Amino acid sequence: MMAFASDIQRPTLMLDETRARRNIWQMADKAAASGVRFRPHFKTHQSAGVGEWFREAGVEAITVSSVDMARYFARNGWSDVTIAFPVNIRQAHALNELAGQIHLNLLVESVDAVTALVPKQRYEADAWLKIDTGYGRTGIRWDDHDTLLQVARAVAQADSLRLTGLLTHAGHTYGAGSPKRIVEIYRESAFRLGRARDALADEGWRVLLSVGDTPGCSIVPRFESVDEVRPGNFVFYDLAQHSFGACNEDEIALVVACPVVAKHRSRSQLVIYGGAVHLSKESIPGDDGRPIYGRIALPAERGWSRMYSGSTVASLSQEHGIVQAEKELFDRVQVGDLLMVVPVHSCLTANLLGRFLTLDGEVIDMARF
Amino acid sequence: MMAFASDIQRPTLMLDETRARRNIWQMADKAAASGVRFRPHFKTHQSAGVGEWFREAGVEAITVSSVDMARYFARNGWSDVTIAFPVNIRQAHALNELAGQIHLNLLVESVDAVTALVPKQRYEADAWLKIDTGYGRTGIRWDDHDTLLQVARAVAQADSLRLTGLLTHAGHTYGAGSPKRIVEIYRESAFRLGRARDALADEGWRVLLSVGDTPGCSIVPRFESVDEVRPGNFVFYDLAQHSFGACNEDEIALVVACPVVAKHRSRSQLVIYGGAVHLSKESIPGDDGRPIYGRIALPAERGWSRMYSGSTVASLSQEHGIVQAEKELFDRVQVGDLLMVVPVHSCLTANLLGRFLTLDGEVIDMARF
Repeated sequence: MMAFASDIQRPTLMLDETRARRNIWQMADKAAASGVRFRPHFKTHQSAGVGEWFREAGVEAITVSSVDMARYFARNGWSDVTIAFPVNIRQAHALNELAGQIHLNLLVESVDAVTALVPKQRYEADAWLKIDTGYGRTGIRWDDHDTLLQVARAVAQADSLRLTGLLTHAGHTYGAGSPKRIVEIYRESAFRLGRARDALADEGWRVLLSVGDTPGCSIVPRFESVDEVRPGNFVFYDLAQHSFGACNEDEIALVVACPVVAKHRSRSQLVIYGGAVHLSKESIPGDDGRPIYGRIALPAERGWSRMYSGSTVASLSQEHGIVQAEKELFDRVQVGDLLMVVPVHSCLTANLLGRFLTLDGEVIDMARF
Repeated sequence: MMAFASDIQRPTLMLDETRARRNIWQMADKAAASGVRFRPHFKTHQSAGVGEWFREAGVEAITVSSVDMARYFARNGWSDVTIAFPVNIRQAHALNELAGQIHLNLLVESVDAVTALVPKQRYEADAWLKIDTGYGRTGIRWDDHDTLLQVARAVAQADSLRLTGLLTHAGHTYGAGSPKRIVEIYRESAFRLGRARDALADEGWRVLLSVGDTPGCSIVPRFESVDEVRPGNFVFYDLAQHSFGACNEDEIALVVACPVVAKHRSRSQLVIYGGAVHLSKESIPGDDGRPIYGRIALPAERGWSRMYSGSTVASLSQEHGIVQAEKELFDRVQVGDLLMVVPVHSCLTANLLGRFLTLDGEVIDMARF
């Protein structure tokens, strides 16, 4: 086992740097081979340190999900940033300031938001129209050409906005059910984005297309019909991505090391220090349909073992996790040992834990807002 | 509307100090009238500032859920602290240090943990046996007298531990289904704890009894048959407690102010800046059985309006919330307005947001670990 493991006292986010760097290079290579720009989403790691691994893979442009995150990465030397969230006009002042410092890309999806933003925008920013290609969360419906053209016109008339592209997040790949269906959604989504582009072309506007969900970007062999990809989660992957078939188990780059604090033989349960404030309450359905909050591996010489297929984090309270353990695991583990919990959703787990510990014992900080 | 509301730019935890202080006094009065010690759980607010409101209500002893939280409150002048979590022997050094500084109360539930702890414990601490009175999360089963006596003996033999009491958390009140059933669980739990005490008394040990869930402590008219109560959530309450009948709507003391960033008339949905990293993914079933992640009020002259009964936070992603809005709310709200989201679980929401903004515009910080 890693020498420093004996010093781990509380739920600790362990990061396998080799795996994360390999995940980055794989996606960067696929983007390069496809001739598209790779603009990874940094909300997954929220860390200037991890960001450098992307820079070493040739990344120059990034995506974030909040204005605060954009400021953090701008301070850390990133000069081309997309805030992939419908523009929040309450932050117009901060947005204008950022636009004066870096190449800022904003998402707009209504005339109202453009109208409210423009009077407060002195520096120029790129505007991307947020398009809904079927996910149904937010954005202009791909086939609602009236709204599309209205918003495009509002942007085109604003001195401080450049009409740059159409951007979508096909988040419905997360519920697709099979890799085959994920590929279909990816293609359908790119096709629909292309139709929206055609509607703008008819009016003389030429725009770029940007897509971005990790399941789709991981599974398609090649990025076709788009100009830019923005996956984020793939840097670490997690149990949810594994359940979709978006990654192999040995591509999952982080776990939460959790101390065992109690054993209950009669129900074959282990109690761990590791709860909702560490793992998040994100769940996926287990084999019996009930929610699971993580799967279990053990510490290994370097990193962690393969997951135990018959053991899960079955419930969480604020600081406690209850592990339903198969007999072999139950018998092997003692109070005071560490379990390595593979989280359901690495973005939310990393956001809660706030820093990474690499397998070499190095601490990598995340932003704190 | 409050003058400073126009300055709110991002998801912001709004705290009604008057309500919170009233909640504290109500519980403190009930404890005093019942002749039991009030040892409130501070994991809900994790804030030295909010802690002072308890001190003003006569509170001298507190409960926390982690060693780090115990250290934080010890630094902030709290000298009698129970860590209501099975002792984590990986933190034995920190526990010993704390025991040298304050009156420290630990939870033990196995001979293994006691055996591992004692050699590292130089300063004396009070030991409470964690008892499972029916919740089934962790602890010694109330009727497993063999284990109870084994652990009691291990504690009694340790120079650095004082066998002080029996402690339970009847967390199954959260799924009880009705206030009547919550009262039944409270009473059953206190009765079972009493039976475990009797088993120790037969061996000559006299111990105190401590109970602690917010639904039970809120609903029973008087604390009977116990020596100490440890509710936490009641200081703020939330949508879950309201759904159990543990509080009235005007006792809920916090909401998350969230900017509206998009409107979708065709499906009557509002998109807010406020997602899983602000509200947490804790949910309760809505009227149709599907999960809801919050309910909606509007900003008022001071604080917020009553909740809209037909509107809910229907889904969350990392930073987005989707509000399924009834027509009146939808029509009333514009992009750039604030919605006041009543969270499902105030402890997890406060933990994510990290600071409070009172209705007077004062910022109250929380601990950061």
